[in-house]
Amino acid sequence: MSTPLKVAVLGCGSVGSQVVRLLQEQAGDLAARVGAPLELVGVAVRRLDAAREVDVPEGLLTTDAQGLVARDDVDLVIEVIGGIEPARSLILSALENGASVVTANKALLAEDGPTLYEAAEKAGRDLYFEAAVAGAIPIIRPLRESLAGDTVTRVLGIVNGTTNFILDKMDSSGAGFAEALEEAQELGYAEADPTADVEGFDAAAKAAILASLAFHSRVTASDVHREGISEVTAADVQSARDMGSVVKLLAICELKDDAVAVRVHPAMIPRSHPLASVREAYNAVFVESQAAGQLMFYGPGAGGAPTASAVLGDLVTVARNVLADKRGAGESAYADRAVLPMGETTTRYHVAIDVDDKAGVLATVAQAFAEHGVSIQTVRQEGRDDDAQLVVVSHSATDAALAATVEHLRGMDIVREVTSVMRVEGGEE
Amino acid sequence: MSTPLKVAVLGCGSVGSQVVRLLQEQAGDLAARVGAPLELVGVAVRRLDAAREVDVPEGLLTTDAQGLVARDDVDLVIEVIGGIEPARSLILSALENGASVVTANKALLAEDGPTLYEAAEKAGRDLYFEAAVAGAIPIIRPLRESLAGDTVTRVLGIVNGTTNFILDKMDSSGAGFAEALEEAQELGYAEADPTADVEGFDAAAKAAILASLAFHSRVTASDVHREGISEVTAADVQSARDMGSVVKLLAICELKDDAVAVRVHPAMIPRSHPLASVREAYNAVFVESQAAGQLMFYGPGAGGAPTASAVLGDLVTVARNVLADKRGAGESAYADRAVLPMGETTTRYHVAIDVDDKAGVLATVAQAFAEHGVSIQTVRQEGRDDDAQLVVVSHSATDAALAATVEHLRGMDIVREVTSVMRVEGGEE
Repeated sequence: MSTPLKVAVLGCGSVGSQVVRLLQEQAGDLAARVGAPLELVGVAVRRLDAAREVDVPEGLLTTDAQGLVARDDVDLVIEVIGGIEPARSLILSALENGASVVTANKALLAEDGPTLYEAAEKAGRDLYFEAAVAGAIPIIRPLRESLAGDTVTRVLGIVNGTTNFILDKMDSSGAGFAEALEEAQELGYAEADPTADVEGFDAAAKAAILASLAFHSRVTASDVHREGISEVTAADVQSARDMGSVVKLLAICELKDDAVAVRVHPAMIPRSHPLASVREAYNAVFVESQAAGQLMFYGPGAGGAPTASAVLGDLVTVARNVLADKRGAGESAYADRAVLPMGETTTRYHVAIDVDDKAGVLATVAQAFAEHGVSIQTVRQEGRDDDAQLVVVSHSATDAALAATVEHLRGMDIVREVTSVMRVEGGEE
Repeated sequence: MSTPLKVAVLGCGSVGSQVVRLLQEQAGDLAARVGAPLELVGVAVRRLDAAREVDVPEGLLTTDAQGLVARDDVDLVIEVIGGIEPARSLILSALENGASVVTANKALLAEDGPTLYEAAEKAGRDLYFEAAVAGAIPIIRPLRESLAGDTVTRVLGIVNGTTNFILDKMDSSGAGFAEALEEAQELGYAEADPTADVEGFDAAAKAAILASLAFHSRVTASDVHREGISEVTAADVQSARDMGSVVKLLAICELKDDAVAVRVHPAMIPRSHPLASVREAYNAVFVESQAAGQLMFYGPGAGGAPTASAVLGDLVTVARNVLADKRGAGESAYADRAVLPMGETTTRYHVAIDVDDKAGVLATVAQAFAEHGVSIQTVRQEGRDDDAQLVVVSHSATDAALAATVEHLRGMDIVREVTSVMRVEGGEE
C-alpha cells in the first residue's frame, strides 16, 4: 500500500458534509479500491461556527480556501462550493499547484468549462465532474467512455428534480403550477426562490455539459435555448393526458446533419416512452446512438448523499490516476460542431385553438399551417356551445416555421384564442 | 497523432462483423477519440468462405487465430468467439504477448475469470468486458468506477432478453410458456435449442460477473443458485397480475451481513417497480447502494450492433491506456466475501394452494407457516364449488424455511395441491 494521498474539500454544505462523512466511514474500502489511503487534510468553509451535518476532525476546518489549494502537498481537491467565483479561481489554483480536481459545479462548467479543461490539460491533471449532471446517475462516464466507440444522435434528459416533481404533481392531481410549486417548497423539493429550477437555468447548464460530451464539441449555457415551466397550465397537462402523453421539462441535445441543437423546454411525450414513467424528483437521461440504440440511465438527481456518491466515484478514479502518474480521458472537442439557432431546430408542435364554430374553420386553419410549410399529423375538433376547440399536432418542422404558424393563427379572425402551444417529443416524426 | 495501434478481431459472427464494420466506418472518429488511428490487421474465423454481414478487407481473414494473437505487433485483441475454448487460450496468449484484450465472453469470465484477471495483471495489460453483461448497457464501468466510492447493497437485473420477451408475452397475452417460446423462436429472440436462455444459464453467468464487481469478491457461475422459467405457468402469471405484480427472470446479487447471496430465478415484482416496465427483449439492471440510492440502467441487452458499441467503447479506453503506457482499473476482489448457500438466503414466497373448503383451513395453513418460523404478510381466500384457493405471501425468511413450509403444506390432508410457488422481490420486506 502506497503512502496516503492528501485530499482537500472545498465547501461543507449538504454535498460536502456527505463527502466528508463517506471519506471517514469508508476509509478502509476506499484505500483498498484506490491502492492508497485517502487522508483528509482540510475542509474550506465560509464560517467556522456554522452548524454541519458531519463532525469535521479538529483543526481541519479553515476559512482560507485559497491557502488550502495553494498547499503543495495536496494531491486531490474536491470542489463542492458551487457558483462561478470563487470556485473557478480555486479550481485553477489547485490545478496549477499540481492537484487533480473533482467538482460538482454544473454552472461553472456550463459557463466556462473550456478554461478549466485547458488548465487541466496544461497541468497534466484530471478534472472530473460526474456529479455535475443528474446527481448520482452515472452519465458523464458512459457518454465519455462507454459510448466512445459509437455515434450519439440524441440525448433527452429529465435533469431537474424540482420541475419533475412539480409536473408530476400537476399530472397526478390536476393541480395548477402555483399549487404544485407550493407543495414542492413545503416538501423541500423547491427553493424559496425557485427561479433557477423552474425557469430552466439549472437544466440548461446540464444540457450544455451533456451536449459537449455527446457531440465532442464545445457548447456553453448561452448556446442553450431555454424555456421554463412557469407558464405550463393545468389545461396544458390535461391536453397532454387527452392524447396519451405527459408534460416533462426536457433537456434535448440532438445531432442535426453535422450541427448540434440544444434546448430546454417543457414538452409532451407519449406515456409509453421510458422517460414518461420517471416520477417525483427522480432524474433520467435517455440516449439514442447509432449502434447501441436506446439507453436510459435513471436515479436520484440531487441530494447530499447521492451527489457525494458520484463525487467519490470520481475521486477513486482520479486517485488511481495520481498513483499511476497518468491522466484519465480529458475533454474531447475535436468534432467542433456548430450550434444551430433555435429557429432551425426541428420539432413538432401541439396547438390548441378556440375558434368560431362555423363551417370551413378546419379548412382555414389547415391552410394557415400549409402556408408555412408545416404538415399536420392529427387534428381533433371539439364543439362547445357557440365555439369549438381544435387541437392540432404537427409533423416535424423548423421551430421558426412552427412559431410563425402560431403567430399567423393568433391574427386570424376566426381564431378566438390560441389556448395552448407546446412542443411534442419522443414519438414518431 | 501517434502511429497506428494494431487491432486483431477473433470471431466474425453477428457481433464480430459489426465490430469490423464500425472500425471501418468510424475510423476517423475513433482515431480522434483515441489519439491514434486503429488499424485492423487480422480477423480470425473458422471458415474463410462463410457468408458474412461485412466486407472484410482482402487478406485480413485467417483461420489461424493462434497465429494472429502470437504476432508481436498486435496491440489490441477483441475476442468475440464466445465459449470456453479456444477463447481462453487465445486471450491468455494475447495477454502474454503484450496485447490488451476486450472481450464479450460472459461464459468464460463467469467460469474462469480469475485466471484471466491474473494473467492481465501479470502482463500489465488491460482486460475489459463491458459487452459481457447486458449488451450495450453501460453497467460494468458504472459498477467498477462510478460506484467505487459507495457501498452497493443489491443488484437486481433483467439480463436475458429471450426470457424477458417470453415472460412479457405471457403477461400481455395470457399465453402459456410453450406458446410464448414458439413466438420468440419465430421472431428470432430464442434459439432452436433455448436451454441456455430459458433455464437461466446465460443469466447466471452474468449474475456471477455482476456480483464479483458489486461486492469486490470472486463469484463464479457455480456459486449461483439457478432456476429457469420453463415451469412458469399462465396461472403463475395470472396470480402475479391479481396481486398487481409481474413475473420476471431476475439475476439477484445481495450483500447479507458480510456475505454475498447470488441467484437467478423467476420472481414476482410489483408493477410500480422500475424493472416491471422493461418490456420485450430489453434488459435493465437496478442497483441499490448506500449513498447513491436506487439507480437503473436500461437498454438493448443483445444484438450485433449494440454489443459492438460496448466492445468499441472498451476498445477506445484500452487503446488510450496503451498510448499512455498504463492500465485501467483491474479486478478488485479485496473484500473476499463468502457466498451464502441458497438455503440461508432470505426472500419472500408467494404460494397458491387448493384446499378443502371447510372451516379452520386457513388457521391450519397459517399454523404450518408459523411452525417453520415464517411470518405471513397477506393471505387471500377464494371459494370455488367444493374447494377453495388460498394465496399466501410471506414476509422475508430464509429460503430453507420457506421451502420446508411448502414441503409441509404438500403433505397436509386438507391441501389438495400446491398450485404455484414463486419468490417475491422488489417490494417491502
